[in-house]
Amino acid sequence: MTHPDIAVLTTGSELLNGDLTDTNTGTIGRTLNSHGYRVRYSLSVADSEEDICQALNYLAQRARAVIVTGGLGSTGDDLTARAAAKFVGRPLVINDEALRMIRDHFSRRNRPADMTTERQALLPQKAVPLPNPRGTAPGFWIQQQGCHLFFIPGVPHEMNAMLESAVIPGIIRALPAGLPEHQRQYSLFGLPEPKIEQRVPYNRLPEGIEVAFGLNYPLVQLKLRFRGDAAEQRLDQAEMLLFKALGDYIVAREGETHAGQVGKLLTGKGLTLSLAESCTGGLIARMLTSQSGASAFLERAAVTYADSAKLDWLNIAPELLQRQGAVSEACALAMVRGIREAADTDLALAVTGIAGPDGGTAEKPVGTVFLALAAEDAEQVQKYQFSGDRNQVQLMTAHMGLEWLRRYSLEH
Amino acid sequence: MTHPDIAVLTTGSELLNGDLTDTNTGTIGRTLNSHGYRVRYSLSVADSEEDICQALNYLAQRARAVIVTGGLGSTGDDLTARAAAKFVGRPLVINDEALRMIRDHFSRRNRPADMTTERQALLPQKAVPLPNPRGTAPGFWIQQQGCHLFFIPGVPHEMNAMLESAVIPGIIRALPAGLPEHQRQYSLFGLPEPKIEQRVPYNRLPEGIEVAFGLNYPLVQLKLRFRGDAAEQRLDQAEMLLFKALGDYIVAREGETHAGQVGKLLTGKGLTLSLAESCTGGLIARMLTSQSGASAFLERAAVTYADSAKLDWLNIAPELLQRQGAVSEACALAMVRGIREAADTDLALAVTGIAGPDGGTAEKPVGTVFLALAAEDAEQVQKYQFSGDRNQVQLMTAHMGLEWLRRYSLEH
Repeated sequence: MTHPDIAVLTTGSELLNGDLTDTNTGTIGRTLNSHGYRVRYSLSVADSEEDICQALNYLAQRARAVIVTGGLGSTGDDLTARAAAKFVGRPLVINDEALRMIRDHFSRRNRPADMTTERQALLPQKAVPLPNPRGTAPGFWIQQQGCHLFFIPGVPHEMNAMLESAVIPGIIRALPAGLPEHQRQYSLFGLPEPKIEQRVPYNRLPEGIEVAFGLNYPLVQLKLRFRGDAAEQRLDQAEMLLFKALGDYIVAREGETHAGQVGKLLTGKGLTLSLAESCTGGLIARMLTSQSGASAFLERAAVTYADSAKLDWLNIAPELLQRQGAVSEACALAMVRGIREAADTDLALAVTGIAGPDGGTAEKPVGTVFLALAAEDAEQVQKYQFSGDRNQVQLMTAHMGLEWLRRYSLEH
Repeated sequence: MTHPDIAVLTTGSELLNGDLTDTNTGTIGRTLNSHGYRVRYSLSVADSEEDICQALNYLAQRARAVIVTGGLGSTGDDLTARAAAKFVGRPLVINDEALRMIRDHFSRRNRPADMTTERQALLPQKAVPLPNPRGTAPGFWIQQQGCHLFFIPGVPHEMNAMLESAVIPGIIRALPAGLPEHQRQYSLFGLPEPKIEQRVPYNRLPEGIEVAFGLNYPLVQLKLRFRGDAAEQRLDQAEMLLFKALGDYIVAREGETHAGQVGKLLTGKGLTLSLAESCTGGLIARMLTSQSGASAFLERAAVTYADSAKLDWLNIAPELLQRQGAVSEACALAMVRGIREAADTDLALAVTGIAGPDGGTAEKPVGTVFLALAAEDAEQVQKYQFSGDRNQVQLMTAHMGLEWLRRYSLEH
């Protein structure tokens, strides 16, 4: 079964000069796949009536439907409606329904619609206006050369809303759908992508299951996809095999984060946590508190940059800092013991290291990091040598720390 | 003077299904603008020989040069060379120079090039290979219908390298450049974009200066652009007027961050800093320590989530927490005094609030935030009511805190 080809046309010079990165095409592609359609072409052109018109011609000849985003506002460089009128060879006329939509939008906010705004009701003759739940500019729908063209705003939150409320239903009415794509996504940590790929049990996966990879440093995103009957069942099978082969490295599922999973586990097990961060400068605490509910497990975190902070908050002996230095196994251990005692928590984690680019030495080069964990029944410390720039070392260290916490809570 | 139109063709199904967001087009657009060229079309197609070939035809008819990224690898869906051969109507042949480049790449790493890798030397007859300083797959250059086509890899760091080393020089040799675009960028905080726009002295800006806006919540990006003679001089003038009108809100220039500026100022003035963060959970400390050199000014930060941490690290009276609660002006003041005394720093900043989505009440709704600053000669506390989701409230709070620090250090 084939999937009707859809084209996306994004308009706006800001997409071509680097001012703005186009995320609409990806959103539209993902959404259409899940409904059994497929984006085959995506074209971006500047705010030029001529270029937009030519692009519409090119795409309408090749796709069953074209989704056009951008250029529907009321400013001078909003030329999409004019280009569409030229493309279909019909005049621009005030569309009464569109005008009503605009005035309703303003009356709901008890403000009068002004002339410039009402210009947004100028649509190609016979165009069908599409309501915009999140903004003033209505979209519209026209048919030409057997192709369905949907025109919607480019602002992502308006675009997303109209994609769901108007475009997808319109496409479903107009075109027979192929098999919808079902997808599941997992975040993996602790193995580089090539090693993960080697371990994927490709030959045992149910027929038709596709595996795709993405990177969100230092996490690897793995996607399982399937189009066809009993999709969820097949994906369950594939997921089971995936967890058998790589379960230890799967730290989160779609919509979850590594830190979010750690928070869930700690909360579920009723474990409290305290942190002592040096080279990560608060990154681990920030990750754990970016989800709500962190107060259920996070008691406190100390960002101890200067030695004095290590001395009086973590109760570290000055001699230790003098002899071994702040970046040492002994210091990491002292930090984790100190913070756990100060905070009186079940669990404590400490990190100290050299994130760079400065501060590296021959025996302790940039990327040298010590992690330490302490609990009533456990105490561990380990030295790592991470590579990359400052941000990569900090991210790698933070995720390694989260992983220590995840594994501890899984085992307790 | 006109700017020769350039087209970009990005290939790869992952660009159309939402797996990958195309950043190459923006990079190419920015770079070409700075050399006096302009990207007029950007087209993305799936890994299909037919689609790539059609796209080349469409773009070669409309642009003086086409930059094609992606599909040069040695796997099955790397079809760009084959599509290019079809487009020019010449066979694919092993290109000796390309083969030499590939073998050199491996011999530099003391590894033999295997067959599959050497397949990357299969180029359209008469194609000129372009060395790839960062990978195995050479790019290539062909001329057709008076259009110059440059084929380079899609992996951003390989693409960037070849854009600079091969494509730009090639385009400069092939096409007369227009006026290069000069640009300056500024980050503003504290005014919404419409209010900033109202204050931009458009009518007094030197002729030909363009103003563009972007958003990096909660910061607004403002760009000044100019094409023409004495560009830097005109931009200096425009910058002066911009600073007169909006100087107080300009928190960073291109390549700098808000936190980076604060760090520079504190270091320059020799001021030390301590932080007590509650609702931001370490975000401010993380921002300040994402740049190296933070140890020059940041003494320590306390993420005091539980009351007990506020009690013994910040020396806050239990009665205060009972009577006013942790989210109160009194608590913010006590926190900032407590951390400054504990850390013995010139400057201290404290934040406490309700980031949400839970924890809001009638008198203290989500978004209620108290900021407090303490120094030997200053003490201030203020209540804010921020809106947005948890992440937005945390970001807004953190940047407001940075702004307090920036303004204090500017005045001292």
